[in-house]
Amino acid sequence: MAKVEFMPVGRRGTCSEETSLLECARLLDVDLVGLCGGIGVCRRCRVQVVAGAVSEPTEEDQGAFAEGELGQGHRLACMTYPRGDVRVHVPPESLSAPQRTQVEGLEVQVQPDPLARAFEVRMTPPSLGRPVPDDRNLWDALRRDHGLAMGTIDLAVQQVLSTRLRELGFEAGVVVREGEVIAVDAPATRWIGLAVDIGTTKIAVYLVDMQSGAIAASAGLMNPQISYGEDIVSRIHHAGESAENAAKMQALLVDALNGSVASLCAEIGADPAHIVDAVLVANTAVHHLFLRLPVRQLGLVPYVPGIGGAEDFKAREIGLKTAPGAWVHMLPNIAGYVGADHVAMLLATGVSGREGVTLAIDIGTNTEICLNCSGRMKSVSCASGPAFEGAQIRFGMRAAAGAIEHVRLDGERPEIQTIGGGSPVGICGSGLLDAVAQMLQGGVIDATGRMLDHPLVRRRDGVREFILAERPGQEDITLSQKDIRALQAAKTAIRLGIQALVEDAGIKDEDIDRVIIAGAFGTFIDVESAIAIGMLPELPLGRFEQVGNAAGTGARLALVSREKRREALAIAELDGYLELARIPDFNEKFAAATPMGAPVS
Amino acid sequence: MAKVEFMPVGRRGTCSEETSLLECARLLDVDLVGLCGGIGVCRRCRVQVVAGAVSEPTEEDQGAFAEGELGQGHRLACMTYPRGDVRVHVPPESLSAPQRTQVEGLEVQVQPDPLARAFEVRMTPPSLGRPVPDDRNLWDALRRDHGLAMGTIDLAVQQVLSTRLRELGFEAGVVVREGEVIAVDAPATRWIGLAVDIGTTKIAVYLVDMQSGAIAASAGLMNPQISYGEDIVSRIHHAGESAENAAKMQALLVDALNGSVASLCAEIGADPAHIVDAVLVANTAVHHLFLRLPVRQLGLVPYVPGIGGAEDFKAREIGLKTAPGAWVHMLPNIAGYVGADHVAMLLATGVSGREGVTLAIDIGTNTEICLNCSGRMKSVSCASGPAFEGAQIRFGMRAAAGAIEHVRLDGERPEIQTIGGGSPVGICGSGLLDAVAQMLQGGVIDATGRMLDHPLVRRRDGVREFILAERPGQEDITLSQKDIRALQAAKTAIRLGIQALVEDAGIKDEDIDRVIIAGAFGTFIDVESAIAIGMLPELPLGRFEQVGNAAGTGARLALVSREKRREALAIAELDGYLELARIPDFNEKFAAATPMGAPVS
Repeated sequence: MAKVEFMPVGRRGTCSEETSLLECARLLDVDLVGLCGGIGVCRRCRVQVVAGAVSEPTEEDQGAFAEGELGQGHRLACMTYPRGDVRVHVPPESLSAPQRTQVEGLEVQVQPDPLARAFEVRMTPPSLGRPVPDDRNLWDALRRDHGLAMGTIDLAVQQVLSTRLRELGFEAGVVVREGEVIAVDAPATRWIGLAVDIGTTKIAVYLVDMQSGAIAASAGLMNPQISYGEDIVSRIHHAGESAENAAKMQALLVDALNGSVASLCAEIGADPAHIVDAVLVANTAVHHLFLRLPVRQLGLVPYVPGIGGAEDFKAREIGLKTAPGAWVHMLPNIAGYVGADHVAMLLATGVSGREGVTLAIDIGTNTEICLNCSGRMKSVSCASGPAFEGAQIRFGMRAAAGAIEHVRLDGERPEIQTIGGGSPVGICGSGLLDAVAQMLQGGVIDATGRMLDHPLVRRRDGVREFILAERPGQEDITLSQKDIRALQAAKTAIRLGIQALVEDAGIKDEDIDRVIIAGAFGTFIDVESAIAIGMLPELPLGRFEQVGNAAGTGARLALVSREKRREALAIAELDGYLELARIPDFNEKFAAATPMGAPVS
Repeated sequence: MAKVEFMPVGRRGTCSEETSLLECARLLDVDLVGLCGGIGVCRRCRVQVVAGAVSEPTEEDQGAFAEGELGQGHRLACMTYPRGDVRVHVPPESLSAPQRTQVEGLEVQVQPDPLARAFEVRMTPPSLGRPVPDDRNLWDALRRDHGLAMGTIDLAVQQVLSTRLRELGFEAGVVVREGEVIAVDAPATRWIGLAVDIGTTKIAVYLVDMQSGAIAASAGLMNPQISYGEDIVSRIHHAGESAENAAKMQALLVDALNGSVASLCAEIGADPAHIVDAVLVANTAVHHLFLRLPVRQLGLVPYVPGIGGAEDFKAREIGLKTAPGAWVHMLPNIAGYVGADHVAMLLATGVSGREGVTLAIDIGTNTEICLNCSGRMKSVSCASGPAFEGAQIRFGMRAAAGAIEHVRLDGERPEIQTIGGGSPVGICGSGLLDAVAQMLQGGVIDATGRMLDHPLVRRRDGVREFILAERPGQEDITLSQKDIRALQAAKTAIRLGIQALVEDAGIKDEDIDRVIIAGAFGTFIDVESAIAIGMLPELPLGRFEQVGNAAGTGARLALVSREKRREALAIAELDGYLELARIPDFNEKFAAATPMGAPVS
């Protein structure tokens, strides 16, 4: 028997070595496409084996992939059998049901005032009487028609300029960024911008109309680096091992972004070559992996970033396909585990400018929390772990079709709600939160998290398990004591982060006027459940606000507004980072905060 | 029989198809290395067939080259036979005797004031109490210890910064250019600069100590693009045909530069990674080919450059190996055929600042001439053709060992002087100039350039030829009527350029106070001979000054001095370009100026 793990969907299980990967996927409810019935004809069930050994490539594999691809583990799932434990990456195009990612966020209105500005020029073609060089000719027109001071032209633009100007009869649309021409094309070209929030697990991509600041198209996708580890520490370790690893991980991410951008452009009839500005946000580790910066020091005390400040560089430097001279702007990082995505979230939610006491929290594998107490702003980072993403949970999975996302325990059996409404195949983070809260309130577990005897609790191999969903003919979906403990550790980490900020500010929980919950996961949780298990402070529900992907909104704001870029810098500057590792009695506090619903001492 | 041409040395001849390329080289006096006697063992006679067909690769070739190299025409000359006319590129390492190139130039003293400045910093390592990001930490130290305003750090530097700072214990040498950190390494690193003059035929490379401004090492090499055409118009045509051609031509040039820089660095115990600034000059077409800019418009009326202004870009953008964040500065171009090398020459010779009337001239395949008449500066470009480089001349060759470089016709036979002093194998430009001047003064040719009857003139196949050097057992070196006409066309083009400037300024030849002759070729010519045939105006010899590679000197000045970069911009701005094609009666003037020694009407 072999352990088979499908990424990025996050489903794991044990399969016989006589079971093809396509069959394994079906057994584990991974929606891998297979049109031909698994006979190697349709070539739709393409996967990549990223760890472990599998059977030799068949003739069908050789027909479907180039030699180099086979060497990198690309296979048809229907033709491939595990030879021991394997990890398999399923690209989005091979999934029949897309995963739920979060691109919707706050709608914040801002007056567009972008760094990259578009102009139309009508140049005088050169002649023997006026044999003016093309660069000079272009700047003369920009100066004459638009009052711009003489500037420069990006080298990559120069590499096409003379040819393109002649094709266009010396009439052109031109984009200028801080005195540098970064794009030239036909007059009336629709110039677009790109905003991206790269999460550890999920990525939100937005194309933005640079004139209006409106979203032209958006998409969510999985971070393909997940194949190198669900948690960021594994990825830091892998990237730190060799420059090749780091380069591969970066290329994987850049390819995924280019692919998504190309699809979105096709959707709206635009051209990636007309992307004239980009703002990217990510947590510090993902930010560094994306820029191929050293990451080793992020995993070692005192966990400092290589880049704290905002970073500007040419998109082509990292292989991002845009207009020839386009720049990328990355917002500043605050600390090794409080990154640009947190800054973007604070920017979008306006936390820094709010009066009173505001708590802003982005729950994930790593949870960042900021407390703005009458203008004094501090952030912490807590390692809440991957339980919310379904990892370390026996039937855990990400928020994809078939995941139990809500649970109520009123009658004899748990009432469950799945994503997409179909039969349950596993449980995702919000479902888990609900389930544990309901189990606590229903007396299935006690305050310490211990599972008690209960009609819905059965014993298997002497160990208690809670029956969440019976599935005739299939294994029931259950929660074990171990699953409860994983969630308990996560909630404790978050609770302690909040507590550290509250104590540092010298206030009490009830002084918090507003709790902003940002991020994909936070959008779907039941706040009552989160309060019930003691993850969030016990405050009137009216004080909570679930805002969706605020980091993505922050990236969009910084894309179209120079003022918002300056504000982001100010936020990073103002934010006093609080390092939990410096709190002397942290371990004692952790133990004290472990009980479910426990008020922290 | 096959016509075989060896590049870049420029020797051509006819060989039997039963003659190996190594033998052909010997017959044509090309000093190709062959240690094993031509049996395919030493593998030293590596060449590249760039045009025409040759015999199939032998086992020896397959042992010496990779499959891809064989496909690109790489062969062992001793194992390869022509199958029709061929052009063969001989890389420098396969030549036993190097060609004469010119790196010596004017020594102009300038106070070093470089754009890239070095600092030493002692940073405070980060701690949990002060977990400051590495970028911030570095800038804090630069600000604290050196009073610098907070700036940025190049992305490529960031990609090594965290690792390198920890290896160095947070003590480092740092180079900052306009507020950007472009290099970080050990304290007391010897930072160097790179100045390059890329000629159509020859390249001069200089490593410069950035502290003192002194030359640390220098070398001359051939421009490998010569394999794609000796004259620039052929190269423009070839590059214009496809992006692949242009990319290949650029790569060839960049590889040659990287190779030369690596050798020079090894010579002085330096590291290319410590090159923190570079200034390159070239004529406009070579400048554009180097930057992979469109060149088609350079070959079409009105011959305008894509880039007229000075250009700054990261060295890595074109594959030049330097410090990670180093920039390249290219001086401005004036017109399609008056480039940055001309500006550099004017900068080095101080022409723009001189009182009175100065004529500055850089003779080559294309000859650029500038007249500064009491502060009113104008330049012209004349297509003098490749005769001075030995092309279109039957026994012509470049200035390499064995070339006749000086000729006197006093006694019965011509007295000749060869480069290196050995037996003559051909004649180079300066020798040709001498020979024709002597023939004119000795009555071998008349003022129209027609060859007359003379004891040294014989007839072969009914055509007159002048015997320059008898070579018992070998073909005599002779000059034909056609050779005379080629030189005559070249001298006429130059004379007319001078004349156009003089007329435009409303002065007469005798008003010229000083004639500066720059460039490799100009260094070695006999000014009297040049006056005798009417190429240069008839002025007292004391008014002429031969200054060597002034363009290279100009590049070095701009490398170490910000003031000199500004001066170069001012020169390009001030210079009123005079387009000869606009002179209405140019063809009549050309005819009138053709006679030898003719005063132009």
